[in-house]
Amino acid sequence: MRTAILIYEGFTSLDATGPFEVLSRLPEADVVFVSPDGGTVVADQPRFALPTVPLAEVTAPVVVVVAGGSTTQRFLEDEELLGWLRAAHETTRFTTSVCTGSLLLGAAGLLQGLPATSHWCELDSLAVFGATPTSERVVVHDRIITSAGVSSGIDMALVLADRLESPEYSQGIQLAIEYDPQPPHDAGSMEKAPEAVAAVVRAVFDEHYGPSWAQRVADRS
Amino acid sequence: MRTAILIYEGFTSLDATGPFEVLSRLPEADVVFVSPDGGTVVADQPRFALPTVPLAEVTAPVVVVVAGGSTTQRFLEDEELLGWLRAAHETTRFTTSVCTGSLLLGAAGLLQGLPATSHWCELDSLAVFGATPTSERVVVHDRIITSAGVSSGIDMALVLADRLESPEYSQGIQLAIEYDPQPPHDAGSMEKAPEAVAAVVRAVFDEHYGPSWAQRVADRS
Repeated sequence: MRTAILIYEGFTSLDATGPFEVLSRLPEADVVFVSPDGGTVVADQPRFALPTVPLAEVTAPVVVVVAGGSTTQRFLEDEELLGWLRAAHETTRFTTSVCTGSLLLGAAGLLQGLPATSHWCELDSLAVFGATPTSERVVVHDRIITSAGVSSGIDMALVLADRLESPEYSQGIQLAIEYDPQPPHDAGSMEKAPEAVAAVVRAVFDEHYGPSWAQRVADRS
Repeated sequence: MRTAILIYEGFTSLDATGPFEVLSRLPEADVVFVSPDGGTVVADQPRFALPTVPLAEVTAPVVVVVAGGSTTQRFLEDEELLGWLRAAHETTRFTTSVCTGSLLLGAAGLLQGLPATSHWCELDSLAVFGATPTSERVVVHDRIITSAGVSSGIDMALVLADRLESPEYSQGIQLAIEYDPQPPHDAGSMEKAPEAVAAVVRAVFDEHYGPSWAQRVADRS
């Protein structure tokens, strides 16, 4: 079962590696990282890189996972990448995204009229592509599944395992990777984080990544 | 702040990439993957590899994280690797492990008389090294922190962020990676998984990985 995880220079490592760890444990899994040009692709944090196959070499994957990253905006008008997504989606069983990867699904025209989610920093930008921003961890709509920021790809992949195989198989993978989360704090969403922490993190994101896509589109017009 | 994540051929990808995603977001972080010989190191699932620096080139890291994997047993008598761990531990602020990585800390003599944890499949083996197997997600003992299977490295790294920086900083990282876990099932530990699922997964592990280290040591004598 060929699964293509789409990454690109500046992707966020856990966006891609969380789903990889889960999906590579499915029966007859063949999980491959794909990128626009193939070769070794560097993440948005130094010293992290993954080997990839060029998009053109992977046709008709059963599952597509689009990773997010700090550079996603650069690819929102990349017709080669968007065309590959549209073509792949015609025959996938599931087309999915983690984090800002959903903006690429949107730019490819695949989220028109659908509920979808993303990292909180770009959630509103989904409306630019005709989607309904939905602040949930994992949003399933028929064959399209989007998930929230970075770490949500693990939860999304377990939801995929439910559907591709069975709930029992998904539970088996959860046990194999001992996914019994116990973070020391309960600050993993904008609603749950202390206000002061949320304000600092939002300011750091604004400074580091600049305006959201929705803001840039608004500024253009 | 130099952090060395130790991996080796056959490491489990998320053991290493979970902590990387968290720890690379700490102030002045310099997180590097290290391996016995350096170069590109392949994980225990196909098509996953990370660039590494040879152990010999990384001296006096501030933090060490030892990843687990399906091949950990092969390195339990590797004196070069164990010697590096012992030397590094003399000056680290924290020496830590994810999953079966704790067996390497044990083999290096660093867990003697201490509570420690590991993946459930090797938890009992910690006793071989004089440690007290402790079935908890993250076990902190002074400068040594061990964590449970695979995905637990994310929780462990957030505990580290608490201590290396502050609880607020740790919360900020949790929000940045939107770590608000919502797996579709509650089957992430031997206690929580349905009995039938646990029995199947244990049988698959036994067949795939063979006896635990404790069992091998018992069989030898």
